Amino acid sequence: MDVVIIGGDAAGMSAASRLKRIMPDTNVIVFEKTKDVSYSACGMPYNIGDPSREIDDLVVRPAKVFREKQGIDLRLNHEIIKIDPQKKIVYGLNEKGEFEQPYDRLLIATGAKAIRLDIPGNNLPGVFVLKNLEDARRIKKFIQEKGVKSAVIIGMGYIGLEMCEALRNWNISVQMVKPNPRFLPNFCEEIADKVKQEVENKGIELYFSKINEIKLNNNKLHVICDGFDLHCDMVLMAVGVAPNSELAKSAGLETSIKDSIAVDKTFKTSDNDIYAAGDCADTYNVITGKKTYVPLALLANRGGIIAADNIAGKKETFDGIVGTAVFKVFGFQVARTGLNAQEAKKYGFDPVSVTIRSSSRAHRHPGAKKILIHMVGDKGTGRLLGAQMVGEEGVAHRINSIAVALHAKFTVKEYFQCDLAYAPPFGPVWDPTLMGARQLLKRL
Amino acid sequence: MDVVIIGGDAAGMSAASRLKRIMPDTNVIVFEKTKDVSYSACGMPYNIGDPSREIDDLVVRPAKVFREKQGIDLRLNHEIIKIDPQKKIVYGLNEKGEFEQPYDRLLIATGAKAIRLDIPGNNLPGVFVLKNLEDARRIKKFIQEKGVKSAVIIGMGYIGLEMCEALRNWNISVQMVKPNPRFLPNFCEEIADKVKQEVENKGIELYFSKINEIKLNNNKLHVICDGFDLHCDMVLMAVGVAPNSELAKSAGLETSIKDSIAVDKTFKTSDNDIYAAGDCADTYNVITGKKTYVPLALLANRGGIIAADNIAGKKETFDGIVGTAVFKVFGFQVARTGLNAQEAKKYGFDPVSVTIRSSSRAHRHPGAKKILIHMVGDKGTGRLLGAQMVGEEGVAHRINSIAVALHAKFTVKEYFQCDLAYAPPFGPVWDPTLMGARQLLKRL
Repeated sequence: MDVVIIGGDAAGMSAASRLKRIMPDTNVIVFEKTKDVSYSACGMPYNIGDPSREIDDLVVRPAKVFREKQGIDLRLNHEIIKIDPQKKIVYGLNEKGEFEQPYDRLLIATGAKAIRLDIPGNNLPGVFVLKNLEDARRIKKFIQEKGVKSAVIIGMGYIGLEMCEALRNWNISVQMVKPNPRFLPNFCEEIADKVKQEVENKGIELYFSKINEIKLNNNKLHVICDGFDLHCDMVLMAVGVAPNSELAKSAGLETSIKDSIAVDKTFKTSDNDIYAAGDCADTYNVITGKKTYVPLALLANRGGIIAADNIAGKKETFDGIVGTAVFKVFGFQVARTGLNAQEAKKYGFDPVSVTIRSSSRAHRHPGAKKILIHMVGDKGTGRLLGAQMVGEEGVAHRINSIAVALHAKFTVKEYFQCDLAYAPPFGPVWDPTLMGARQLLKRL
Repeated sequence: MDVVIIGGDAAGMSAASRLKRIMPDTNVIVFEKTKDVSYSACGMPYNIGDPSREIDDLVVRPAKVFREKQGIDLRLNHEIIKIDPQKKIVYGLNEKGEFEQPYDRLLIATGAKAIRLDIPGNNLPGVFVLKNLEDARRIKKFIQEKGVKSAVIIGMGYIGLEMCEALRNWNISVQMVKPNPRFLPNFCEEIADKVKQEVENKGIELYFSKINEIKLNNNKLHVICDGFDLHCDMVLMAVGVAPNSELAKSAGLETSIKDSIAVDKTFKTSDNDIYAAGDCADTYNVITGKKTYVPLALLANRGGIIAADNIAGKKETFDGIVGTAVFKVFGFQVARTGLNAQEAKKYGFDPVSVTIRSSSRAHRHPGAKKILIHMVGDKGTGRLLGAQMVGEEGVAHRINSIAVALHAKFTVKEYFQCDLAYAPPFGPVWDPTLMGARQLLKRL
């Protein structure tokens, strides 16, 4: 069997590896349009922020290993430009010209692209997005070679905030700007404010305005906002990603939320012989039972494996995600899982929420830090719907016990009864998430 | 209604507070035989190990607050010596002599006592156990006043190890001894060995031998073992606890595992008007469905609250624990939840287990530490049964997502599908527990 995979990042290479492991005789051909495979994309901001590290540190497994140890036919710098689902052929371009490749099964793992604001000057030298390793190389080189002293980051999401910290490590002064006046709009106000304070305390200036244009003037970039300009040596656009679904759409495949490729629980698209996984595809939200689009690394890796299992005839299904995410910004860990109150309302729940202060260590244990935790439940059913947390320690992994409870569709009371670990250096007797559940129970 | 509570520690005071909150008119009388209430017992080793802290730092809420703000009739230095369940009266002793108190409902929250080995010399000056605040005061005072230079700890459980670290903070040289040649016998060998190494690397000498006698000779304590003696200034016996169930037994109440007071899911004993909670009572293990005895703080606090709810007529039930515990020993965090392979076999499962190495941070993220994780599943049903972990960071809270999965009775595959948080500073894309589940799946 010939399995063709378009895209050699998380989903594509997870699928290729899995296929060769469970069906060693399969001919697995991966077309990757860049020269990079299998790197830690989420590690890019941390690498960029560390002058002592090489970008190629981020490569987890080099092409040679995929080819020689795993027997994957990995073709770099090969871009696919068309899929013909009737003939079951993909068409592409490489440095030698056009090529075509028939397939028995196809996996689309084309990922997502960083969105560039559609404004004049969005592609001036010094204006960057950060999505792939080549972007990271360009940014780090630019910082080093131009001796960047100031930067404007457009967007205040996870990548924007992580890059803000990375640039501060180079002693670059950073200004951030975005149109939506709510900082971290997916978080409750108390938690968003706490993170905002931390960012501002680190000397970052935050602006909330429409961004109209970027100009180059006297060797400085000018970010023209409503009523004011921000001047800098470098601009990073970190305003989100969009699925690379053009190939799939031209092939007539169904798409869904944000134009992502619609897949079922086996990662199969609307064509029986074509699968899709990773940042180009949609998935289900276990809590709402509805489709969602979550371009995150774990789902991409998981999707690749499960798609491969199904291509190999193993009939594995994936129920979906619950919406867990964590990021670090300066001294703080910020995490969420499940639905916030607005999302819960949108999906027909009757959300009740509570925000409490707890501690990362036991009563008077030295070094204890505050943890702020917000929890959401459904008034009708008592079901636990989501949680958010911020603190200097003890947040990143703590969110996971709630994530598992969401998969289990636990009520707040069921979560409250869970036997969580306790020792004074690691938390209070009542874990902050249990305290949150206890307060939430009173309101349900 | 008169509610009498015997014991003013975690379970007793949680129950008293809860009762006054939900039924303010109830007359709640707490008899506590010591002068201390509401302190962080688990914090004692950390406090003892910190020369700058006062023992009374551990008091969470002073007696005055319980009395004046919460209206609890709290009577310190009042020991109950007999319960008459027919007459519904408790009899006691205080400094003025005998007293008696009728009750409508009684809660026994007498806790547990530290076991003293039944050997000659077990009560010599300088031989201690650590269970209550008075023990902690005695130990800290002895260390300070005698200028203790060397100690022998009998037992190598959580308390023994925590105290070992506490004594090292005073620069006291520590030897540990116990009869069972397996270090941390409830953990898998790889994890136990890792912890053992850490303890030995910190200069602690470990001996495995029967302990026959303790002698005082030339101002030194001699711990007489099989074929060798250990000499020291101070001995700590940390060989476990036993429930204080004598009162309950003489009153004819049913007891169960390790002589703990048998309670149902509402914390009611075999007498309809008597409840028991905390370290004196048993509970259910959710995984096996069988009775177990777990003298840990969270269960004691929880038991107090749920017993109070039921005394107040609220009909709350508690399904039980899954056996989660965490402790810190020098640079390591050690955690477990659920059953180990031997326990699983004992309860009729067909356990399969796996031990893997993972990392506390993403691929090449600076500062990453190794995490060793052991997971146990049931071959027949694919059910997840338990996990254990050790590492320098990222262990203490990570165990909780598995604990919740055990409450949910998840299969290993269901756990493997959980949407856990990922960011490079906090773990690999595949959380170590997911990696463990993936390897375990292959063997099920």
